[in-house]
Amino acid sequence: MVELYDTTLRDGTQGEHINLSVQDKLLIAARLDEFGMDYIEGGWPSSNPKDEEFFRRAASLSFRHAKLCAFGSTARYPDSVEKDSNLLGLLASGVPVITIFGKTWKAHSSKGLGISDEENRLLIRRSVAFLRSEGREVFFDAEHFFDGYRDNPRFALEMLMAAAEGGATRMVLCDTNGGTLPHEVAETVRVVLEKTGVPVGIHCHNDSDLAVANSIAAVMAGATHVQGTINGIGERCGNANLISIIANLMLKLPDTRTSVVDLAQLTSLSKFVFEILNLPSDTKAPFVGKSAFAHKGGIHVSAVMKESSLYEHIDPALVGNRQRVLVSELAGQSNIRYKAQELGIAIPETGDQIRTLVKHVKELEHKGFQFDGAEASFELILQKELGSFTPYFTIQESKVSIESAQDGRKVDQAVLKVEVGGEIEHTAAEGDGPVNALDKALRKALIRFYPEIRSIKLIDYKVRVLEEKKGTSAKVRVLIETANGGSTWGTVGVSTNIIEASLQALEDSMNYHLFTLKASVPKPEGAES
Amino acid sequence: MVELYDTTLRDGTQGEHINLSVQDKLLIAARLDEFGMDYIEGGWPSSNPKDEEFFRRAASLSFRHAKLCAFGSTARYPDSVEKDSNLLGLLASGVPVITIFGKTWKAHSSKGLGISDEENRLLIRRSVAFLRSEGREVFFDAEHFFDGYRDNPRFALEMLMAAAEGGATRMVLCDTNGGTLPHEVAETVRVVLEKTGVPVGIHCHNDSDLAVANSIAAVMAGATHVQGTINGIGERCGNANLISIIANLMLKLPDTRTSVVDLAQLTSLSKFVFEILNLPSDTKAPFVGKSAFAHKGGIHVSAVMKESSLYEHIDPALVGNRQRVLVSELAGQSNIRYKAQELGIAIPETGDQIRTLVKHVKELEHKGFQFDGAEASFELILQKELGSFTPYFTIQESKVSIESAQDGRKVDQAVLKVEVGGEIEHTAAEGDGPVNALDKALRKALIRFYPEIRSIKLIDYKVRVLEEKKGTSAKVRVLIETANGGSTWGTVGVSTNIIEASLQALEDSMNYHLFTLKASVPKPEGAES
Repeated sequence: MVELYDTTLRDGTQGEHINLSVQDKLLIAARLDEFGMDYIEGGWPSSNPKDEEFFRRAASLSFRHAKLCAFGSTARYPDSVEKDSNLLGLLASGVPVITIFGKTWKAHSSKGLGISDEENRLLIRRSVAFLRSEGREVFFDAEHFFDGYRDNPRFALEMLMAAAEGGATRMVLCDTNGGTLPHEVAETVRVVLEKTGVPVGIHCHNDSDLAVANSIAAVMAGATHVQGTINGIGERCGNANLISIIANLMLKLPDTRTSVVDLAQLTSLSKFVFEILNLPSDTKAPFVGKSAFAHKGGIHVSAVMKESSLYEHIDPALVGNRQRVLVSELAGQSNIRYKAQELGIAIPETGDQIRTLVKHVKELEHKGFQFDGAEASFELILQKELGSFTPYFTIQESKVSIESAQDGRKVDQAVLKVEVGGEIEHTAAEGDGPVNALDKALRKALIRFYPEIRSIKLIDYKVRVLEEKKGTSAKVRVLIETANGGSTWGTVGVSTNIIEASLQALEDSMNYHLFTLKASVPKPEGAES
Repeated sequence: MVELYDTTLRDGTQGEHINLSVQDKLLIAARLDEFGMDYIEGGWPSSNPKDEEFFRRAASLSFRHAKLCAFGSTARYPDSVEKDSNLLGLLASGVPVITIFGKTWKAHSSKGLGISDEENRLLIRRSVAFLRSEGREVFFDAEHFFDGYRDNPRFALEMLMAAAEGGATRMVLCDTNGGTLPHEVAETVRVVLEKTGVPVGIHCHNDSDLAVANSIAAVMAGATHVQGTINGIGERCGNANLISIIANLMLKLPDTRTSVVDLAQLTSLSKFVFEILNLPSDTKAPFVGKSAFAHKGGIHVSAVMKESSLYEHIDPALVGNRQRVLVSELAGQSNIRYKAQELGIAIPETGDQIRTLVKHVKELEHKGFQFDGAEASFELILQKELGSFTPYFTIQESKVSIESAQDGRKVDQAVLKVEVGGEIEHTAAEGDGPVNALDKALRKALIRFYPEIRSIKLIDYKVRVLEEKKGTSAKVRVLIETANGGSTWGTVGVSTNIIEASLQALEDSMNYHLFTLKASVPKPEGAES
């Protein structure tokens, strides 16, 4: 049975651009417990006040399953471990499990700490023993173990034995610099298991792009405790990604009897942590990324639809993810049908409609349109062809002007002439940049007819230059992501003029919103109702 | 000796949001050859006109070392391989090496293609043999090999034998769905080597977060040919990342005798491909990421500085990367000095100049400027601070207007008031999009004073949206690449207004050109000469 030990809240926060408040850490800890993590390392209590506050407040979390752990180093002086502020801080955190790290690479002990082998041995043994005598379970993190073992196996193993003698219940072998290869990890784990007889854990970093593989190699060699972080966050290239490790162990190595409450929560756990970190999620992430089960290419797609298991290594539902078909430049009939099906739209099996549709989509793609991130624009095209959508408004004229002078005067202004249900609305607005001005002017023009657009918000705006070699007259593709409460949709525009491309995407965005609400087009004044 | 086979241009382009123009592909191919890649797979000639154009134009590239390869499938019917349009397209591409894939998972052959085992065997053998008879080297990509071998080892091996009988010189085992674990890869490679006697290659996908590990496991089991993509781009979770594989093989498994021209080019190769793709580079990427050798935390950092090798799995210089110490400020003195030194500019050791410079760069970075792809802008900042550069002109006023009407009338116009040597030039120009109009107006204003600008050309224009959550009022960063004959330079502008950001980058570009030519500023009329 393999134990899962999460260090997102401690080692994960060493990553660049990673910042978690105490409240964030409490939220993540509760979620990790709910998910079924066995151990949750909350921080290093005596290293900073934030971690101390975390442990104070975490005392009121009542975990269903997980054990909360505190992290720290061995004592500074072997003769006074009972007075060591670091160890006392660890005890004060009140947690049942304490993980302490010690030096197992001789160079770090002799050069870094400047102590003799015997002093280091005593530090480790006595620190562990003191914490044990206070009734805590103690895991020993053997820092730089693989480098240390390669360099001087006798020294490295002696330090482990010291921890075992002190009463440590796990020997956690750390590939601190992340440079070890899987076959070396496996060999070393086997030796340690044989020599110490204590359950072995593994803690890897991804500097060689091998952290997940190294963790799995350790488990296959007999390790029964795996440390890592959600989404692999952590210093430099990150820690071993527990998301990938858990999925691999549970789905591909069932003999390891790794377990969580519900593996189908894996994708939402990953997203949740990215959300709390305020980082965009990794679309390419194995198992949980948005692209992890996305298929591109005509022939291939029809085969995927025939029998998914032939094209997917696991059923995406097992990890809470789903299959996606990308409508791309390789778009054939089958891609369009699949996408329509996903959107819940029925397209006649044969006839002109599907042919016209394929032709139209191909033309648009040739112009530089792409619907990967703009499914709303794609749906409008479909619905228009099927006769179920008619645009809610028409932009008859647009004029944008951008003026700036050396004295700092700046005016970005948009003027629009918009036709709605036979009426013409002529509006103007100033904005922060020309696209913002256009957005404001369009809303102003429409809001009288469609108050529903008041609640929508532009949340993302992307520009990609196509045909880059054409310099400043290149075509650009603009992708806009709009939200209304919890739901979001993407639209696209393409032109050599970035303002025009943006306007196209804005138009689609508002039309899509009105379409999904089945808003009614106002009748021209004087017309019968 | 392990061969490196790059499929960035073919399998890499299957990734979501990956788009490469023919020109982009030619640039990447040339760079891969320069780097020392053994094989470069350019595309699938008969699948789309873009790839056909690539092979037509690639014929004029003269590679120093690499062999160009084309990719395609086996023929459709075993009785007419000589007339198969796919095989004929492959031959027409004119490359010395052809990689064809065939079905080696029985379900794909019987259910997907709906053919008998014998038909599939014949398809494979005859397709390979036909291409061989036309004088090409043929690599056989065994699609879904690991799944196929797990499901029906006899069938899978028979199909390989058919390829071998046809004369294929490599058996490339593909983990097409990316679900295989390293120990399974190793076992399977050993069996295939023993049964076929043909050199074995490996082609992995990263769906289990194990593509690099699987590639290395294959090599350790005897594979001598590794396929992958730069930065691991590719469908779903991506292909095996050749960047990580090359570094691991060369630095950690020297017995594999993997070689490239200069491993220290690895980081810049990775950046180059991200740039061409207009994708932000992955800061956490092993070996080449900006954070890969970044150290955080006080005590740790002083130890790192004392003896790097104790805290870094490799010397970052080996892969062209460098150590970074993360301090609160983004642009430290040492970074600026490092960069200045790179540009061959001497900065005084102490004094106000360096302090002002650090402050200024910090402010710019805070605003969203980034100088990675815009060294010309950075150099102008340095030279200005050092008193060696004064701008050649000043834009006093700018006005851009973009008008469009439903009837198709469109006018994009720029009006500029530019001061040069005391004289005011007031110009206007129409263009294809607002930035093009600005570019034309600026050239028009300057050409009388500086005829040197006539020869420069804008060759690339990139827009990246910063602070994406701010919707249409987000800041954008514009990068412009300009060329004059063989030399090129990059400049940058940042603003919430894309037109203004573009104008900043245009200004820098022209100033930089005039600065490097040491152009003289015209004297105001009436002044003494």
